[in-house]
Amino acid sequence: MKKPDPQIEKRIRDSFARQKLMAAYGAEITDIGHGYMEISVAPQDFLLRTSGIFHGGVLAAMADTAAGYAAGTIHTNDASFLTVEFKISFLNPAQGNRLVTRARLLKGGRTLTIAQADLYSIDEDLEKQVATAIVTLIKAN
Amino acid sequence: MKKPDPQIEKRIRDSFARQKLMAAYGAEITDIGHGYMEISVAPQDFLLRTSGIFHGGVLAAMADTAAGYAAGTIHTNDASFLTVEFKISFLNPAQGNRLVTRARLLKGGRTLTIAQADLYSIDEDLEKQVATAIVTLIKAN
Amino acid sequence: MKKPDPQIEKRIRDSFARQKLMAAYGAEITDIGHGYMEISVAPQDFLLRTSGIFHGGVLAAMADTAAGYAAGTIHTNDASFLTVEFKISFLNPAQGNRLVTRARLLKGGRTLTIAQADLYSIDEDLEKQVATAIVTLIKAN
Amino acid sequence: MKKPDPQIEKRIRDSFARQKLMAAYGAEITDIGHGYMEISVAPQDFLLRTSGIFHGGVLAAMADTAAGYAAGTIHTNDASFLTVEFKISFLNPAQGNRLVTRARLLKGGRTLTIAQADLYSIDEDLEKQVATAIVTLIKAN
Repeated sequence: MKKPDPQIEKRIRDSFARQKLMAAYGAEITDIGHGYMEISVAPQDFLLRTSGIFHGGVLAAMADTAAGYAAGTIHTNDASFLTVEFKISFLNPAQGNRLVTRARLLKGGRTLTIAQADLYSIDEDLEKQVATAIVTLIKAN
Repeated sequence: MKKPDPQIEKRIRDSFARQKLMAAYGAEITDIGHGYMEISVAPQDFLLRTSGIFHGGVLAAMADTAAGYAAGTIHTNDASFLTVEFKISFLNPAQGNRLVTRARLLKGGRTLTIAQADLYSIDEDLEKQVATAIVTLIKAN
Repeated sequence: MKKPDPQIEKRIRDSFARQKLMAAYGAEITDIGHGYMEISVAPQDFLLRTSGIFHGGVLAAMADTAAGYAAGTIHTNDASFLTVEFKISFLNPAQGNRLVTRARLLKGGRTLTIAQADLYSIDEDLEKQVATAIVTLIKAN
Repeated sequence: MKKPDPQIEKRIRDSFARQKLMAAYGAEITDIGHGYMEISVAPQDFLLRTSGIFHGGVLAAMADTAAGYAAGTIHTNDASFLTVEFKISFLNPAQGNRLVTRARLLKGGRTLTIAQADLYSIDEDLEKQVATAIVTLIKAN
């Protein structure tokens, strides 16, 4: 995977550090590429449903966030992206000691970007896909 | 709007009170009907994007939660619902002193339930729709 | 419902008449309003699944088409719209002697339009909702 | 790719041959695997928008159909599948001398199946992705 320009990477890490929802969730960037963003989070009591799996709204927030930053990795200027819509499908219960979200671009257009975010739970070393989301974003000049 | 059976309403209020994500958000039930659920939340720093509007992931969590409980209002037994997938479209910036989510059922089937959740921001007395979500749920035993 | 400008209505009827997929289906415009479009189609053998209900792909084409024209009703210039994405949920089997699709705008923005298309089957005089779609469109200058 | 059981392949080819919408479109099966279905179609006047690209409703019908049959490839009994909902995102104009739809399963559960269908246009030997769809299906009887 191609690494993003160092300035782009710095801009994205700085922006992520300012996102209070991600900070409250304890989420962190675990990889960045050109057109790629991976963020991870560990379970915390308030992120889980009463059944002990991650709340779907948490998965949605992770998918939306990763997709937005993946869009940003291919733009040198200080572009920011607004989510137009996304759909998330839940494939398996999101259980485990780590939830990893990997977003990559399906289309990086002048106005619109479309990204797919795949979410995995990791237990011991076993990785299982728990959800997938398709996200439409618009560049906010 | 028809009110739900008192026992159903009690079961839903008890369940909602146990949802730690909703508690962390400071969300509360503001109306329940037969096939209807309204939940509301006030802005808190960690629920907002750096631009001051509610994070899309928060709207998604509210929509998902309201839809799940709306599904529960028409079942007398202790049915619980799992979200299969949802799509959320963002219509306007979610700014204001209150975010209200209203979910109603489009289909309440034996196995699958489909709900629509409309989200509104309220500023002073002005209500503006900020998002809409269509949610598919499956009854878990 | 507010009627569209007569010139807009003429432009839309002319454009619809050129759509060969709609002609092949035997679909016709049954109502136009400002931000509203209704198109209808009768069953034909090739539009049905082997079980006798309308094929989901036919419902999708009707929803997509109605949404695109609903977007066009609020623009005086010769704007055309491209569909960015849509989601369609199937609520009931689409059986009957007529399938009616009603699209209205949820957001009519400068760049993006979001519409909801509700589909109904009509049997005798009984109308039943069979599907709903949320459609994102972009204006192609 | 693992081939499906010959009896399953026969059942699917027979069922596809009875689909009148696919016949009207001139669509054909170009590959079948275990959990995989590829169908292709050539341009015909009535499948195209006035701009000469495939109508979005045609892409949607191809995606829906391929996903349903992909679900069928992993079941030995005469299972049929109903589409619960799908979302399709359009990535590039669907131009070319062939439209190929490839569906594979993201989840093959007891009740629900989730498939992703990727659509490509082929011009000369150049293949370009034009759309992607995520489809939820439910097993009927």
